[in-house]
Amino acid sequence: MAKGGQASTADLDAAMQIALAAADSARGFTSPNPPVGAVILAADGTIAGVGMTQPPGGPHAEVVALDEAGDAARGGTAVVTLEPCNHQGRTGPCSQALIDAGVSAVVYAVGDPNPEASGGAATLMRAGISVTAGLRAPEVEAGPLRAWLHKQRTGRPHITWKYAASLDGRSAAEDGTSQWITGPQARARVHAQRAQIDAIVVGTGTVFADDPWLTARQPTGELAAHQPVRVVVGKREIPSTASVLDDTAPTLVLNTDNIDEVVEALGEYTDVLLEGGPRLAGAFLAAGYVDVIEAYIAPILLGAGASALVDAGVHTITDAHRFRLESAVTIGPDILLSLVPESSAPGNEE
Amino acid sequence: MAKGGQASTADLDAAMQIALAAADSARGFTSPNPPVGAVILAADGTIAGVGMTQPPGGPHAEVVALDEAGDAARGGTAVVTLEPCNHQGRTGPCSQALIDAGVSAVVYAVGDPNPEASGGAATLMRAGISVTAGLRAPEVEAGPLRAWLHKQRTGRPHITWKYAASLDGRSAAEDGTSQWITGPQARARVHAQRAQIDAIVVGTGTVFADDPWLTARQPTGELAAHQPVRVVVGKREIPSTASVLDDTAPTLVLNTDNIDEVVEALGEYTDVLLEGGPRLAGAFLAAGYVDVIEAYIAPILLGAGASALVDAGVHTITDAHRFRLESAVTIGPDILLSLVPESSAPGNEE
Ligand SMILES: NC(=O)c1ccc[n+]([C@@H]2O[C@H](COP(=O)([O-])OP(=O)(O)OC[C@H]3O[C@@H](n4cnc5c(N)ncnc54)[C@H](OP(=O)(O)O)[C@@H]3O)[C@@H](O)[C@H]2O)c1
Ligand SMILES: NC(=O)c1ccc[n+]([C@@H]2O[C@H](COP(=O)([O-])OP(=O)(O)OC[C@H]3O[C@@H](n4cnc5c(N)ncnc54)[C@H](OP(=O)(O)O)[C@@H]3O)[C@@H](O)[C@H]2O)c1
Repeated sequence: MAKGGQASTADLDAAMQIALAAADSARGFTSPNPPVGAVILAADGTIAGVGMTQPPGGPHAEVVALDEAGDAARGGTAVVTLEPCNHQGRTGPCSQALIDAGVSAVVYAVGDPNPEASGGAATLMRAGISVTAGLRAPEVEAGPLRAWLHKQRTGRPHITWKYAASLDGRSAAEDGTSQWITGPQARARVHAQRAQIDAIVVGTGTVFADDPWLTARQPTGELAAHQPVRVVVGKREIPSTASVLDDTAPTLVLNTDNIDEVVEALGEYTDVLLEGGPRLAGAFLAAGYVDVIEAYIAPILLGAGASALVDAGVHTITDAHRFRLESAVTIGPDILLSLVPESSAPGNEE
Repeated sequence: MAKGGQASTADLDAAMQIALAAADSARGFTSPNPPVGAVILAADGTIAGVGMTQPPGGPHAEVVALDEAGDAARGGTAVVTLEPCNHQGRTGPCSQALIDAGVSAVVYAVGDPNPEASGGAATLMRAGISVTAGLRAPEVEAGPLRAWLHKQRTGRPHITWKYAASLDGRSAAEDGTSQWITGPQARARVHAQRAQIDAIVVGTGTVFADDPWLTARQPTGELAAHQPVRVVVGKREIPSTASVLDDTAPTLVLNTDNIDEVVEALGEYTDVLLEGGPRLAGAFLAAGYVDVIEAYIAPILLGAGASALVDAGVHTITDAHRFRLESAVTIGPDILLSLVPESSAPGNEE
């Protein structure tokens, strides 16, 4: 710890980790705004305030953290996952709030690619505040800001295709049974993920076969605080009694087989989870719209039964959809592989 | 380092790691004897000799290491991956050789389960030598001694099913093309593995489809020093011009579809690699003969094409063949998952 807004490197790093966790906990609640986390360190390097983006219309992360810090922010350091915004918007610009609060330094992870909001760093520097960018930027880019950054850069929602399969790539046994291919830990993680995203997409085939709710539930069975919008894609009419049409969450039925139209219709969302089934996933892959694959592989072998992916537009091996492994982690007995398109580097999806 | 055969704990651990590496480099050359490594530490803890099991008829690891150490073995410590043998066999008992050489202490990893050969530890202790067992035992059991220990315990060869597939479990695209599903690093590893095993098994289907050589080659293209026996299983007669029948290595043709008979016929081998294809692998899995699965998963998606596994005797999900993930490592762009049957714990395959 040090004086005059010059918190030590260790203080700053610890604060950024807390800001990251705060940002993560805001996921699902902030759309169309990004989930951001902020920590205010007092002049002596101690934590004076922590904030995260509030739902649309509410204050940004910096303002929440400054409110908590009060006078302790004066001469202190603001540590934020995203460059503080510079525009008036529904709430005032965060750069001005930081200047008004009298912070001496601002440290952020990722620059704001949005031309309307960016310029916060320049405003802060003009006010004599020391500004540092890039702390833990890769983690923030791959973590809470991933979908939002993708949307800013491409204009399209960020689409994660999630599926579960046996080691030999099957999502059901020969007789159609598929209960508990993956274990309870993987299922709990999927529900936690649903509670953090804007929309969840399936084809009519999955609705007819499984009649899923597509809700986010806690391990206790209770509904999570945030529910994603449910989206059903396909020309067949699904029965009005389908579970996905209950009143737990809004449901969007997209009566089309044109994937470009589907992605267009998802334009207001940022973080989208494609939960299948195999044919709709094949169509998304063939159209090049899968930004991340999350494959839950169960350590079981079936040797027969439906494939986890069909009709992906690949006829010969050189046309294969090539991805790059980003991480492999065990989730209980299962393994979760995360992959991104081969061409894409983190933070460079275009 | 210390005196009187009392090498330090660090000396002993370092020596066991060298013994492990020596044992690994003997794999493929020792069958039916186990690939064992031995290091002789002089009384001052320095390395005086390193040995590994020689091909059948040649000396055991301890004798090779003692030969190199000469007089320096006196008062020193022998560090061995397997309990020194006690039986006369084709070479004299290693326990007697160690006593004759005047070592003060013997440290080994794994006890010998073979009733004929065991008793080495007791003989050594009766001669006043201090004996310690268990150093790095899990690594030795899961490493160079795995197949041999399995054979000792079950009477059957240890069978590793190795396959390569896309993330969605396919071993070829729709049009049958499959070249380079996995990358050069994975292919090099498979060739290195072939050079360390006793026999490599495929079905007639693979011979008809791919006409493989099933030889072990170095990255330069040269044949490796050790070639496994090639085994082709199935009732269809394969053409006399099949590459697998060339004179690079012996080839065994097993004219049967009975997997029990196949395993019986492989009885003289210890470390067997089942390289497919999908139907023969299914039959081995259904019969419960797969001791380890090595799945090379390429980060590509096909959505159509032949499955890596068929006809494994599973009709409903509760009959799935359940395995336990032992390790997941990346090999270039691919991921190698190693799995063992769910019930088996390391060193307890029965
Ligand atoms: N392993 C997993 O993680 C997982 C996840 C979900 C589902 N599943 C399983 O998948 C099975 C259902 O398979 P499915 O393939 O029928 O399900 P699906 O992919 O959910 O639905 C297929 C339907 O999607 C619609 N669709 C819209 N655009 C399309 C396009 N461009 N190309 C193709 N289809 C398009 C079509 O509906 P219309 O015919 O109405 O036009 C098509 O019939 C179920 O057994 C379910 O359990 C597995
Ligand atoms: N992904 C990989 O790692 C990999 C590895 C190897 C091969 N492959 C691919 O697999 C394809 C060939 O498939 P495949 O299934 O025909 O090959 P296979 O499994 O090598 O051969 C099948 C044959 O094995 C014989 N067999 C012996 N006992 C059997 C039993 N109990 N049950 C069933 N079969 C038994 C039968 O021969 P008979 O009919 O003569 O009695 C059967 O036709 C090729 O395209 C090849 O490229 C992939």
